[in-house]
Amino acid sequence: MNNFEFYNPTKILFGTETIAKLDSLTPAGARVLILFGGESARKNGTLDEVKSALGDRPIFEFGGIEANPSYETMMRAVELVRSENIAFLLAVGGGSVIDGTKFVAAAANYAGEPWSILETFGQHIESALPFGTVLTLPATGSEMNCGSVITRRETSTKLPFMSSYVFPQFSILDPTKTYTLPTRQIANGVVDAFIHVIEQYLTYPAGGMVQDRFAEGLLQTLVEIGPKVLATPEDADLRANLMWVASMALNGLIGAGVPQDWATHMIGHELTAAYEIDHARTLAIVLPSLLQVQRKDKHEKLLQYAERVWAITEGDEDQRIDEAIRRTVAFFESLGMQTHLSDYGLDQNSIDLLLKQLEAHGMTALGEHKNISLDVSRTILEGAL
Amino acid sequence: MNNFEFYNPTKILFGTETIAKLDSLTPAGARVLILFGGESARKNGTLDEVKSALGDRPIFEFGGIEANPSYETMMRAVELVRSENIAFLLAVGGGSVIDGTKFVAAAANYAGEPWSILETFGQHIESALPFGTVLTLPATGSEMNCGSVITRRETSTKLPFMSSYVFPQFSILDPTKTYTLPTRQIANGVVDAFIHVIEQYLTYPAGGMVQDRFAEGLLQTLVEIGPKVLATPEDADLRANLMWVASMALNGLIGAGVPQDWATHMIGHELTAAYEIDHARTLAIVLPSLLQVQRKDKHEKLLQYAERVWAITEGDEDQRIDEAIRRTVAFFESLGMQTHLSDYGLDQNSIDLLLKQLEAHGMTALGEHKNISLDVSRTILEGAL
Repeated sequence: MNNFEFYNPTKILFGTETIAKLDSLTPAGARVLILFGGESARKNGTLDEVKSALGDRPIFEFGGIEANPSYETMMRAVELVRSENIAFLLAVGGGSVIDGTKFVAAAANYAGEPWSILETFGQHIESALPFGTVLTLPATGSEMNCGSVITRRETSTKLPFMSSYVFPQFSILDPTKTYTLPTRQIANGVVDAFIHVIEQYLTYPAGGMVQDRFAEGLLQTLVEIGPKVLATPEDADLRANLMWVASMALNGLIGAGVPQDWATHMIGHELTAAYEIDHARTLAIVLPSLLQVQRKDKHEKLLQYAERVWAITEGDEDQRIDEAIRRTVAFFESLGMQTHLSDYGLDQNSIDLLLKQLEAHGMTALGEHKNISLDVSRTILEGAL
Repeated sequence: MNNFEFYNPTKILFGTETIAKLDSLTPAGARVLILFGGESARKNGTLDEVKSALGDRPIFEFGGIEANPSYETMMRAVELVRSENIAFLLAVGGGSVIDGTKFVAAAANYAGEPWSILETFGQHIESALPFGTVLTLPATGSEMNCGSVITRRETSTKLPFMSSYVFPQFSILDPTKTYTLPTRQIANGVVDAFIHVIEQYLTYPAGGMVQDRFAEGLLQTLVEIGPKVLATPEDADLRANLMWVASMALNGLIGAGVPQDWATHMIGHELTAAYEIDHARTLAIVLPSLLQVQRKDKHEKLLQYAERVWAITEGDEDQRIDEAIRRTVAFFESLGMQTHLSDYGLDQNSIDLLLKQLEAHGMTALGEHKNISLDVSRTILEGAL
């Protein structure tokens, strides 16, 4: 096992009726900015419930945060925070709203030009506004980590940043608030969480027995609940488990002390930035091809994945690996997820553009061995056509 | 899944050379009290390493904290904290030293008589001195939770308390510091961690799929490494995994949102208080009999435990449950652990005393269904003769 630090101070309030606890969690008298996405939070009553729980605190609203939150949009929120002297932020939504809120929290008092937060991956952040979240879409794990991904529309650049200053102080996870989500978003959440786990698990053996077992447990749970959670939207236990899997998938725990990959994410980000394909869907396109291309480097963990997650014991090693990748693809497709670039009308010309974007963003040595060069990324994308 | 709150702000620094980070973790210039157990920390050099890392801070020492730390001993440390105006506590040791340090942290500024902290299970604690830990014995999980157990020698009373004020600020986990531990203590650690997991897992199904998978993963890891970790004391990966399992076994994660038992612990505490049997050894005595006595209430989870942890698929349900309990006992015994009261020279007369102690401490309705009355405890203890 590698040396590691693990720190996660976010307080989780999980279950029904937890939004009512906002009053005791939020500083008394604080000027609060509620950040949210589309109008669904208002229509389904969650926004009203949140405002009611906040009592007589001065409340401001910032709606319209889009999927893949943009620098352009979030900078308007930063201006509002400054002009209204906001003391506490409350994200109400999914990963995009929470990621955007983290950027606002870090940018509000940032000394330099806020875009440089992204260009330096957050390493110069020295403070942030405190904030909490009310999660309505289980997927990204942003509610329980200190990472965020922001897109600059004018340059089609999607970059991540991390800082221990942007852990949410608390996150409220009420599974019943996910009942009204469109099937497409739930499918995205299942795949997003699945591939978050894979990025921290499917590398090479490093003696992290606990991390491996936890990762396998999350994958097994997703395989078990995936189709059901789409078919029966108001099953409280299924939604609760999806929500908790998604938080555990990316809260630092399973990745502590073991190698990590993240090449699927970096390549996928370019697909979203260039073609606005849903984040999870880009991952479902890239991962199967990446596993084929990197199968030698990932040989031992692919065999472990085949046996422990898919219970594959028949065939020689190559056959077991092929079967594991085949079942992974079948799992994504069982959730209505397309897994090829051509399904989205993309072809060889798109790959040229994606490679240029990867190069422009410095993504020239990806993966747990840093051996996914631009040429290897090209092979991966061609395998995904 | 049940509603739950999860909060664990302890920062973990895991791996080799981590003691050197004490300087950046401890407040500059703070008057530090180092608390430790026997002389092994001094002899094996860990104490010197710790003091060296603390630089020129004023350092005070309090050694001699015994296994099952006593109120009597720890009150002397409280007096030292008050008289020397200590600002920061540093526990160097295992669960007993850390539990004792938590009591000192809570008692230093406690308004009432400190023993009432135990009598009220910690619920009236309103502040605590900040403290960190350097873990040298993986077992209790105290390094990453907010619980503590203290024994009052004069009345043979062993009671737990919990408070979010007594989370360690940080814990340093360097697996190489466990190399010199006696085999007996490592065996105790394996069994202690195993039964911590069991107490939060082997109850009744509650839809906590993640919690179940994580618990099973910890148990599988312990089964896999248990005998090896005794046989090869200087295997860094084995020691690292034992250390991380023990922390994960009792840091609040696997027990969040699911029913918990803890009857084995409550009965075991009486065995330790009355006869000074090692904590883990009392658990290995009580658990097998408790599982037999409670097998109807635990039927479904016992079957799940048999299948997922022990891969038992042959036989009818009762046979599979018997086999799972048999293998659990065999696992404890493979670690050199005796599992009967008679192995420790105890008989029916001892049971009468233990029952009186359980009654005196209010332990009259134990277990996840609160249906382990004194009569049931008697049956469990008689089954363990």
